[in-house]
Amino acid sequence: MNYITIIGLIAAFGTTASFIPQAIKTIQTKNTSGISLGMYALFTFGTLCWLIYGILSHSLPVTIANAITLLFSSIILIYKIRYK
Amino acid sequence: MNYITIIGLIAAFGTTASFIPQAIKTIQTKNTSGISLGMYALFTFGTLCWLIYGILSHSLPVTIANAITLLFSSIILIYKIRYK
Repeated sequence: MNYITIIGLIAAFGTTASFIPQAIKTIQTKNTSGISLGMYALFTFGTLCWLIYGILSHSLPVTIANAITLLFSSIILIYKIRYK
Repeated sequence: MNYITIIGLIAAFGTTASFIPQAIKTIQTKNTSGISLGMYALFTFGTLCWLIYGILSHSLPVTIANAITLLFSSIILIYKIRYK
């Protein structure tokens, strides 16, 4: 693993780890009132595209970060649609 | 520009465009009470690492998305520190 990939993995850790606590809180409480459906749908779609981009461009950091983020954001999006 | 880069740019648009309205609202109102300083500092650091990763790995989508996000998140982080 080269140093560029290591920087990418640090980046992936930083942005994913800062997103997860809020995501878990939202999932646990099912309180999605502070979330805009349109913006969150766009975010989830963007994360899906990042995942595809990461896989196609063989970028391990982009793939890992967005696989994890997509998992959480999809659950929140489903809750937002179900409990709105 | 190949199709992988185009998918990456769509991804960059999706996640960046969904982040900006909330960021602008936070900057305009200077209301950062809903933001955790530790989590936001980690997010901003992660975004900086993504920008470096994007430049070093010659990824146009990663570079563009994180340059824009870093600009907004840095302003919000400064506000969070100043107005907390």
